Amino acid sequence: MNALLASTSTLHNQQYLEYLEKEISNLFKDSKEVIFIPYARPGGITYEEYTEKASEAFLKYGIELKGIHEFKDPIAAIENAEGVFTGGGNTFLLVSELYRNGVMNVLRDKIREGMPYMGTSAGTNIAGLTMQTTNDMPIVYPSSFKTLGIIPFNINPHYLDPDPGSTHKGETRETRIHEFHAINSQPVVGLREGSWLEARKDQIILKGDLEARIFRKDKQPEEVSTDTDLSHLN
Amino acid sequence: MNALLASTSTLHNQQYLEYLEKEISNLFKDSKEVIFIPYARPGGITYEEYTEKASEAFLKYGIELKGIHEFKDPIAAIENAEGVFTGGGNTFLLVSELYRNGVMNVLRDKIREGMPYMGTSAGTNIAGLTMQTTNDMPIVYPSSFKTLGIIPFNINPHYLDPDPGSTHKGETRETRIHEFHAINSQPVVGLREGSWLEARKDQIILKGDLEARIFRKDKQPEEVSTDTDLSHLN
Repeated sequence: MNALLASTSTLHNQQYLEYLEKEISNLFKDSKEVIFIPYARPGGITYEEYTEKASEAFLKYGIELKGIHEFKDPIAAIENAEGVFTGGGNTFLLVSELYRNGVMNVLRDKIREGMPYMGTSAGTNIAGLTMQTTNDMPIVYPSSFKTLGIIPFNINPHYLDPDPGSTHKGETRETRIHEFHAINSQPVVGLREGSWLEARKDQIILKGDLEARIFRKDKQPEEVSTDTDLSHLN
Repeated sequence: MNALLASTSTLHNQQYLEYLEKEISNLFKDSKEVIFIPYARPGGITYEEYTEKASEAFLKYGIELKGIHEFKDPIAAIENAEGVFTGGGNTFLLVSELYRNGVMNVLRDKIREGMPYMGTSAGTNIAGLTMQTTNDMPIVYPSSFKTLGIIPFNINPHYLDPDPGSTHKGETRETRIHEFHAINSQPVVGLREGSWLEARKDQIILKGDLEARIFRKDKQPEEVSTDTDLSHLN
């Protein structure tokens, strides 16, 4: 496995993918062409718009990004891919389209075989066992909540600590994950913006400057520091 | 129809249901016993704990609250009910259990016949056409996202305005609803905490001190003031 799973595509006051520059150039060092999966359509933008945005960011690596929607046979496109990048947006839409186009299983197989994979936000969420710790609205009804499962736990991207000064009564992120664990047993990694997981061979290492918050059923949440190996979580 | 659909159960620095006291006492003035639906399990609490909490708040009205889980036949319980209150929590769990227990359709029929109904948060969300503008995590996979449809639009409870000072890159509520409208066409009412809808006969009136934010596909969002009739929205 050779995957880069980032909480977010963009940090405050930075360009799209800017903070991941070194990691992207390393991950895709042997790739001339990478397949982009724009299914999550952030803010409802089209596949074409989204692919153009991502392509521009990949120009500096000398890599041509091709949208999966440009291929007649999306399954064959993944089968033949040198690398894949799945962008963020709405996770329900992403998962729904991955199933509808028959791409979920072939993508899992290719990542397991070692094809370089990068995800941001929703594209990272789908690396987990299920998409059930997404923050997104259920704008479509996917045929399943099961996702790639290339890591043995779930991810909550854009993890946000409770705001002690808030007067808002909607559930905090931590409460939502606690509700998840009332019904489900897999651990959840709350990945803050600026953190990513580097999944190489049998290791899943937390990277970036921040700690991540680990939630386990019936246990107190726990902070883990950068460079922690999470491969034995679960 | 005779329904009270509140964005939240509790306001900052107040007791549970405190701000709705007058409305609750008016809605259930002819009811001695009200059925409580605790399926949404906020924070993962049990049906028993949740029903006890709600029952205590109903003591002052001289109303006995009975949890739907206390009945062998939940469908008959709704059929015979003088009134129903559905509490907040996780909307996916609520909708999943409403279908699993066969309660969704009988509840819709009874509300249409004029049985007093009150919802808070998730219990309000299910009054809309679908649950697809919930803020909750998909902790279970419900058999459908379709909900009661006693009002002709969708609701986003706990509506939260974007924070202009935020450095967080997760989607704002407004962006999420915009993503909803990339795929779906029904209007969405963003109901702020402290607002509720009073659905009586053929009118659906916005109540409380705050404006509500109305989202329509391909249109700019619009603020509407208290006492606006939303029955013709959609």
